[in-house]
Amino acid sequence: MLEAILKHIDQRRQVSLEGLKAFLGIPSISAKPDHAGEMRRCADWLAEQLGAMDLSVEVAATPGHPIVLAKNEHRPDRPTVLVYGHYDVQPAEPLELWTSPPFEPTVRDDEAGYPAVFARGAADDKGQVWLHLEAIRAWQQQGGLPVNLTMLIEGEEEVGGANLENFIASRRDELKADVAVISDTAQFARGVPAITYSVRGMFYWELILAGPSHDLHSGLYGGSVANPANVLCQMLGSLHDADGRVTIPGFYDDVVELTGEEREMWRRLPYDEKQAMREVGLSEGWGEAGYSALERQWARPACDINGLTAGYQGAGAKTVIGSTASAKISCRLVPRQDPGKIEEALRRHLAERCPPGVKLEIVAHGHSSPGVLVRTDGRAMQLAREAIEIGFGQAPTLIRSGGSLPIVGLIKQALGIDTLLLGFGLPDDRIHAPNEKFDLDALYRGTRAAAALYERLGKL
Amino acid sequence: MLEAILKHIDQRRQVSLEGLKAFLGIPSISAKPDHAGEMRRCADWLAEQLGAMDLSVEVAATPGHPIVLAKNEHRPDRPTVLVYGHYDVQPAEPLELWTSPPFEPTVRDDEAGYPAVFARGAADDKGQVWLHLEAIRAWQQQGGLPVNLTMLIEGEEEVGGANLENFIASRRDELKADVAVISDTAQFARGVPAITYSVRGMFYWELILAGPSHDLHSGLYGGSVANPANVLCQMLGSLHDADGRVTIPGFYDDVVELTGEEREMWRRLPYDEKQAMREVGLSEGWGEAGYSALERQWARPACDINGLTAGYQGAGAKTVIGSTASAKISCRLVPRQDPGKIEEALRRHLAERCPPGVKLEIVAHGHSSPGVLVRTDGRAMQLAREAIEIGFGQAPTLIRSGGSLPIVGLIKQALGIDTLLLGFGLPDDRIHAPNEKFDLDALYRGTRAAAALYERLGKL
Repeated sequence: MLEAILKHIDQRRQVSLEGLKAFLGIPSISAKPDHAGEMRRCADWLAEQLGAMDLSVEVAATPGHPIVLAKNEHRPDRPTVLVYGHYDVQPAEPLELWTSPPFEPTVRDDEAGYPAVFARGAADDKGQVWLHLEAIRAWQQQGGLPVNLTMLIEGEEEVGGANLENFIASRRDELKADVAVISDTAQFARGVPAITYSVRGMFYWELILAGPSHDLHSGLYGGSVANPANVLCQMLGSLHDADGRVTIPGFYDDVVELTGEEREMWRRLPYDEKQAMREVGLSEGWGEAGYSALERQWARPACDINGLTAGYQGAGAKTVIGSTASAKISCRLVPRQDPGKIEEALRRHLAERCPPGVKLEIVAHGHSSPGVLVRTDGRAMQLAREAIEIGFGQAPTLIRSGGSLPIVGLIKQALGIDTLLLGFGLPDDRIHAPNEKFDLDALYRGTRAAAALYERLGKL
Repeated sequence: MLEAILKHIDQRRQVSLEGLKAFLGIPSISAKPDHAGEMRRCADWLAEQLGAMDLSVEVAATPGHPIVLAKNEHRPDRPTVLVYGHYDVQPAEPLELWTSPPFEPTVRDDEAGYPAVFARGAADDKGQVWLHLEAIRAWQQQGGLPVNLTMLIEGEEEVGGANLENFIASRRDELKADVAVISDTAQFARGVPAITYSVRGMFYWELILAGPSHDLHSGLYGGSVANPANVLCQMLGSLHDADGRVTIPGFYDDVVELTGEEREMWRRLPYDEKQAMREVGLSEGWGEAGYSALERQWARPACDINGLTAGYQGAGAKTVIGSTASAKISCRLVPRQDPGKIEEALRRHLAERCPPGVKLEIVAHGHSSPGVLVRTDGRAMQLAREAIEIGFGQAPTLIRSGGSLPIVGLIKQALGIDTLLLGFGLPDDRIHAPNEKFDLDALYRGTRAAAALYERLGKL
């Protein structure tokens, strides 16, 4: 049966690409309040696709963007698989750096010379949601999936928030499953398919410093008032020492140190740090002393400024003390770090550096999430490894990721199940950046692997 | 004769205001390259005004914005006065904070309840240039000025640069004078007219940090690459200690300390620090320990961030490491500090904090200028004090200013003469900020004082 399914997938390659392009053409940017209509349109479009596969579909309203929920007929004699994905995408700015417009999907060769589709969301996560839809469609057209399927596609992954958490809590029984599957990570490299067994947690804040009621002349007032931009830099500049370590008190207290075994395993991966840094235009990497780049990304916590805004940003000079200054900052957390404890320590660290005449406001964007480790020795993991091998003709490597998937912890906590992270993107997909892309080969092989996964999980 | 002149000024109050509004209606923003046409229009408009007063006028081209130069007939038997002003203005952003549009001059009561004209450039410096034009016009219509007049109105005061310096160097003989007059400062307070005897110097830089070739996902890369925004905050956050002192090595080495006499003189001024801070929306001032607000503004150097730009600045969250980060910063310098020496020390301080993978570029906006002290015991100063008393019915106070007027040092250096700083603005004029204004009373009394000054300087 799987042979027939895979053949069907072969024959639909061009049709599948056209479908993905339609999906990518919808600017479903969850962060932008004025894009709510496009979010709704995208959810409806997905519901239509899923409905056409003979699944029962619900577009569930939330206080934010809708959640798309699809199911086949659930029978007690077979395992239940919860597939999670998201249809929202990151903002596309800066727009002028895109070679083709972010919401006009365009197929051309990527920098490595492989054909890819370029668009915001191509790899994160529409391309990877789409290949599951294609795998499901193939099964449904050949007599039906061999598992009970619950597919949940949310619209607020890129902004976080409590809506998905509340939805899962209120539908716990309906969402019950034996295992969860998420395709929102990447292969280790082209030709090195992978399963991810750990992701970092995170929290994301906006800091807003308010000083004088209006901008002041920096000559007349300079030196006599606390300048919000100066204060912001003092606060944020104090978050790291010269060795790249985060200085928030207690930040490293609960970090699980890497084992020698893990470090050795990663050293054997086909990864050239110099080369990887050159690929993003850097002469070399930089970070916490004593760790390799992979170790810093996968197993060490980090604190990054994601945006800065203060004073005059136009051409030339303006001698002004801006009345406000603001920053977006986030921390990436690793297993055993308690997000609440770190947040509290950071809050205190910042407040201590706020002089008279400046007010500090902290706004959290989304919920904080802890780092997650998934069991690597279970039956589901074994079946997933087989599926990847069928899809790619090659056994997968076990890796971690520096990114965050709060949903993994949420599923574990609310439904008591582990998640298989089968990611088909590539490290050079430029997710969250201009010229995001998804390789056509990843789309094709990923669709095959997903189809094989449904077959294998039937035996769970 | 002066009586007739002052009467003439009385009668022209409404006409004078309409003229100023026309001047303010021209958006002569020197910092914006796309405003070059408006700059030219403003220079031509001024030339027309001056020509109508029976002066010989030249609109001198420079590599930047034109300089307007006007003269009456110079006779060897009377003193020569060089009057300097500027017709360019600061950018008006943020536009949404203006009650009336910045280039649609509007008369209404200011917050203290006095009628004022609101527009960008109202006090800095168009209103103050205009009152000289009105005083000159009055004299010319009553038989002619009692001095040789050279009026130089430039268009690059707000952006600095070498053009004015080169112009003055190339026209040294033509610009020869016995004394210079500038009205580009303020009264000490409403009802406390003043002459300014010292201004701070300055330099203004843009820092541009370039990291990866494109924005990176802060989850995948966070901790393993130098984040330009993090580095920028580390560089700039290290410029002050917790007591508000600048930490650039050698920064205070050559600073002339305040004398007890000066401190005592300033303590006697009608200045309530708490009240002054409340007026700009602050519960209290803040700055270098051990100094009052006036001392910090007038006699202590300062270093301020004037703008910050990095990463994502839109709504909500974007988990990105921006490929670049930039800042505008400026230092205000006091007498005896050598700008070149401080610039070099700052350059070294910043470079030492630039990790591998980040490139630092420094762009200077305008020329650096030293702080300036003007003699307070000369004959010209005495005549200027009399002129203020005639104009305002009250003797002026001698004060300093925290702002910078590089032209004062330039005039001293190139022409060998001192400058009288007769400023008619008010501290609450919001220069460089939204809702800039110039009181109608300051316009009227300032015009009277300028007219009296020309009479008095005839006796120099």
